[in-house]
Amino acid sequence: MTPLAADDRHRIEALVANCRDNHSLPRAFYADPQVYAADLEQVWRRSWLFAGHSCQLIQPGDYITLSVDADSLVVLRDDNGEVRAFHNVCRHRGTILCTEPAGRVGRIVCPYHQWTYGRDGALMSCRGMQPEIDKSQLGLFPVHTREMAGLIYICLADEPPDFERARTLMEPMAKPQGMERAKIAAVRDYEINANWKLVWDNNRECYHCNVNHPQYIQANFDHYNADDATERVREKMAAATARSEAKWAACGLAVTHRQTGMASFPDPDQDCWYSANRTALVDGWVSESLDGRQIAPLMGDYPDADVGTLRLRTVPNFWNHSSCDHAVSTRLLPGGPQRTLAQVTWLVHADAVEGRDYKVEDLLPFWQLTSEQDWELCAAAQRGVLSSRYEPGPLSTYKEYNVEAFRKWYLMQLGKQ
Amino acid sequence: MTPLAADDRHRIEALVANCRDNHSLPRAFYADPQVYAADLEQVWRRSWLFAGHSCQLIQPGDYITLSVDADSLVVLRDDNGEVRAFHNVCRHRGTILCTEPAGRVGRIVCPYHQWTYGRDGALMSCRGMQPEIDKSQLGLFPVHTREMAGLIYICLADEPPDFERARTLMEPMAKPQGMERAKIAAVRDYEINANWKLVWDNNRECYHCNVNHPQYIQANFDHYNADDATERVREKMAAATARSEAKWAACGLAVTHRQTGMASFPDPDQDCWYSANRTALVDGWVSESLDGRQIAPLMGDYPDADVGTLRLRTVPNFWNHSSCDHAVSTRLLPGGPQRTLAQVTWLVHADAVEGRDYKVEDLLPFWQLTSEQDWELCAAAQRGVLSSRYEPGPLSTYKEYNVEAFRKWYLMQLGKQ
Amino acid sequence: MTPLAADDRHRIEALVANCRDNHSLPRAFYADPQVYAADLEQVWRRSWLFAGHSCQLIQPGDYITLSVDADSLVVLRDDNGEVRAFHNVCRHRGTILCTEPAGRVGRIVCPYHQWTYGRDGALMSCRGMQPEIDKSQLGLFPVHTREMAGLIYICLADEPPDFERARTLMEPMAKPQGMERAKIAAVRDYEINANWKLVWDNNRECYHCNVNHPQYIQANFDHYNADDATERVREKMAAATARSEAKWAACGLAVTHRQTGMASFPDPDQDCWYSANRTALVDGWVSESLDGRQIAPLMGDYPDADVGTLRLRTVPNFWNHSSCDHAVSTRLLPGGPQRTLAQVTWLVHADAVEGRDYKVEDLLPFWQLTSEQDWELCAAAQRGVLSSRYEPGPLSTYKEYNVEAFRKWYLMQLGKQ
Repeated sequence: MTPLAADDRHRIEALVANCRDNHSLPRAFYADPQVYAADLEQVWRRSWLFAGHSCQLIQPGDYITLSVDADSLVVLRDDNGEVRAFHNVCRHRGTILCTEPAGRVGRIVCPYHQWTYGRDGALMSCRGMQPEIDKSQLGLFPVHTREMAGLIYICLADEPPDFERARTLMEPMAKPQGMERAKIAAVRDYEINANWKLVWDNNRECYHCNVNHPQYIQANFDHYNADDATERVREKMAAATARSEAKWAACGLAVTHRQTGMASFPDPDQDCWYSANRTALVDGWVSESLDGRQIAPLMGDYPDADVGTLRLRTVPNFWNHSSCDHAVSTRLLPGGPQRTLAQVTWLVHADAVEGRDYKVEDLLPFWQLTSEQDWELCAAAQRGVLSSRYEPGPLSTYKEYNVEAFRKWYLMQLGKQ
Repeated sequence: MTPLAADDRHRIEALVANCRDNHSLPRAFYADPQVYAADLEQVWRRSWLFAGHSCQLIQPGDYITLSVDADSLVVLRDDNGEVRAFHNVCRHRGTILCTEPAGRVGRIVCPYHQWTYGRDGALMSCRGMQPEIDKSQLGLFPVHTREMAGLIYICLADEPPDFERARTLMEPMAKPQGMERAKIAAVRDYEINANWKLVWDNNRECYHCNVNHPQYIQANFDHYNADDATERVREKMAAATARSEAKWAACGLAVTHRQTGMASFPDPDQDCWYSANRTALVDGWVSESLDGRQIAPLMGDYPDADVGTLRLRTVPNFWNHSSCDHAVSTRLLPGGPQRTLAQVTWLVHADAVEGRDYKVEDLLPFWQLTSEQDWELCAAAQRGVLSSRYEPGPLSTYKEYNVEAFRKWYLMQLGKQ
Repeated sequence: MTPLAADDRHRIEALVANCRDNHSLPRAFYADPQVYAADLEQVWRRSWLFAGHSCQLIQPGDYITLSVDADSLVVLRDDNGEVRAFHNVCRHRGTILCTEPAGRVGRIVCPYHQWTYGRDGALMSCRGMQPEIDKSQLGLFPVHTREMAGLIYICLADEPPDFERARTLMEPMAKPQGMERAKIAAVRDYEINANWKLVWDNNRECYHCNVNHPQYIQANFDHYNADDATERVREKMAAATARSEAKWAACGLAVTHRQTGMASFPDPDQDCWYSANRTALVDGWVSESLDGRQIAPLMGDYPDADVGTLRLRTVPNFWNHSSCDHAVSTRLLPGGPQRTLAQVTWLVHADAVEGRDYKVEDLLPFWQLTSEQDWELCAAAQRGVLSSRYEPGPLSTYKEYNVEAFRKWYLMQLGKQ
């Protein structure tokens, strides 16, 4: 990790000093290449990042690649069944090693001069080099990994932050979903014309849902807030929650978010980057599908379709909405000051057979539409904040408390030594 | 308006000090991002800019949008029939409000969270915000506007420069053309691969016309200058002028440019950014059409096709050539250090019916060809001035006096506090 | 030539101080815009650059254009049959003069205002300019040229480095190939997504050949090095060399590279930028064609197909592989910090008739495949060196001695005052 240069740090500090509580961020935070460089350094190269799903790496040698800005990474399952990750860059002259998005390798062989690395990253052979080369010093640069309930995380920092508290909360919540026994039913890759923080600003409120997400609001309660959750809405949610609780208790599931409005996240006071909760869907909906009906076989340990919706999230790059029958993960990666790459992945039970047990065209629309609606809003926000007359505006205390929480969490990361 | 930072000002001053009278500008002025930023600040965000035509905004709520670099603007007709303009950016989190090039709105509703603004820019509702929000402080940022003889101008500065002297000159000249009673017959949008000042360098001389504009030179006298306006040319122009004057006096039109060569403009000594004149066309030509014949119904108050050509221009972004039967406006907008967006608009009488009274294919070629010939020259100039061996060369005192005038006017704007 | 500013020089010096002997260069050298600017200044605007072939400029007025980054150049044959080159930029307002890649001109006429230059670069007329203009001061900026054995070189420096030592070595070697009596059979233009130095790193070793160049390694010995040239390989090469030597002596050709491995080049100790050698092909191969057979009429003075392979190279932008029947030249030009433009040209005897004497589809594959294989490796290297964890790795003393030689030669150029 390269700490920020003193000059850059001063410039960033001056920008931070101009931020106002409960207001959107000033333009530089969404557009400036130096702020983006600081984001890479302070957020993206220090945090735990969601990389992919365990079910993408089944056999030893199965790998996926991803890029955090210009840092290419390869994540693979090693001979002991553990997930490992490395900088996907040859230690000889720096060539990219694995050039495909995914595949299976025996050893990792550089296409340029065939330097060959084991699945543990060790340099095994470099034919043509002088014998005095110390191969033990030329292994691939390792990247920290964690595997949890079917989700794979990586961290580029030398000293990664704690992961175990996240596991303590998330693993028991995620376990019944059985994502480690899932398979990937569909993937959609998107290039969002917006800074990654605008994508989180969008994700962290449902203030925009009523008009922009006609599909989403039919299934959920979280677009209602203190200001507009009528008595009737509250009663409906309480009834759905009560009914669910009684039923779920039997199979060890708990309702952990009982109010309208989104669960609070992230938590800047605790510097907490992870969250998970289970909550009720609207009566009559058992899945985030277009009509609320089950569209694939039950996943994991679920005895019944009525399990509400499981939500998982980790800043800076992951959220997941899981229903009884499918799970949808969104992974963000930074691609420039005004560009974010999103990959949306739909998972179903590993044994489900396409065409027989589920149809991709039933599975996709709910989150494909919702995602694409959001990416367009993010791009419209990006265009606007570039204006010389853009001024940070006030956030709704009813509806954008999580946008404010994200802002504070972000500024806390920026300020870290 | 953000005044230039001291460092930037010093750098610009050093560049200005290297400019030579009666020579083209040094490379930095056509390529450097910092000079471009200064141009935005000193020219584009201070000057009156042509935005569009009155006939594009007929009903209350009719609007057009345009962008001055990253500043998106919306120009609309309000409930009192006045033209108003605003920064097209929501005061909440900065989202672009009107995303279409033109349309009609009741109120301006942000697509993101439906903050709703009146046609006067006032924030009328922001459902979901806490009651203590002071809506009166959250109206759209206004932009100054002026409407004159069917032309709409805007100014992004807090304190716009005087407009009334321009009106005093231009309005009486433009009035008989009747552009406020016109309709748009055709629009062509161009991306010119050149700095906006190269486009003016091109516009401000007809030294390049003989070879490059075979259509234009048939109709006009202004490509002849003191060095090559033969006795015969001078006599022809004098005859055309005399004939016109006699005839035009009856209907209140005057010949205001009687010499060969282009009318002097801009005027750096008076810091004058506007100009208008009427001059004779070549004998046998009553319209800037390919064959000089009338190609659409008479516009405005013209009793007769023989009214010569009306010219209007304002730096930094507008020129108009009007004939008896149609008017052609060119609007420039800056799109980067080496990129200028041009919109060319053809107007005819509001009552003219396409197919019956005029054909677009007759109307377009004269100025479509002439414009595209110019854009190609501008792009060739841009490529050349990027060379490390480009040196500003001498301007022709016969033919490029207006290029020199533009250069001086521009440097005067750059130097303003 | 603009010497580097003191600040830039200091920054470059700090970067150079971090370079390690016998290791690839740090990231900044392959990516940083300031290093690229220094490369243009210290290497590209000071060195002799291969521009094209004599046979492209047969008649007086024949010209080609090329661009060294933003510097457009025109190279032509003048009325005395000499090759001349000029900055392809009008001395008036900087417009590009010759806009085609090649053509023939009587005089060079600027498309903008028809300033007209002779084939010697002198400004002959500038109709429309005031008489006091001193035309003698407004000729095209000349560029130094040399013609040698059918190859044309240019140098943008005011004071070019010595060329005659290069001629002394190269001309006698190249002469028998008869490239001045050749014609161009095919040209392929490539945009390589890599810094120009990565292209040389690739060119200066055959460590990557075994796996990546299946065509190339069948014909040649130079992918074998001290570490892997078995006794059998050495015997085969010695036999081929001995056989060739005996035969070639009769026609005045000499084997000048007798070992496996690539000829040493460049030579940083002597600051030597040119090299030429003739070496044996594998037994049974008389041409670098897919099957080793002759595919076009003999070129130049060759009495027989068995003439091995002639190699010519000059840093920073040229290499040539010539067989008995055809010659292939590669010209590099810088197009940005991470972008290099390559033009590969195939030459055959001037009298050879396509379809009758040779087929383009036989001529192209060997070097088209080999080139495209290389460009892809260069792009993979570029992607990798951008990683924040890329570290310069060790070079093979057996196989990458020329990569190291190039690195030293390059750093020597950067350090020049």
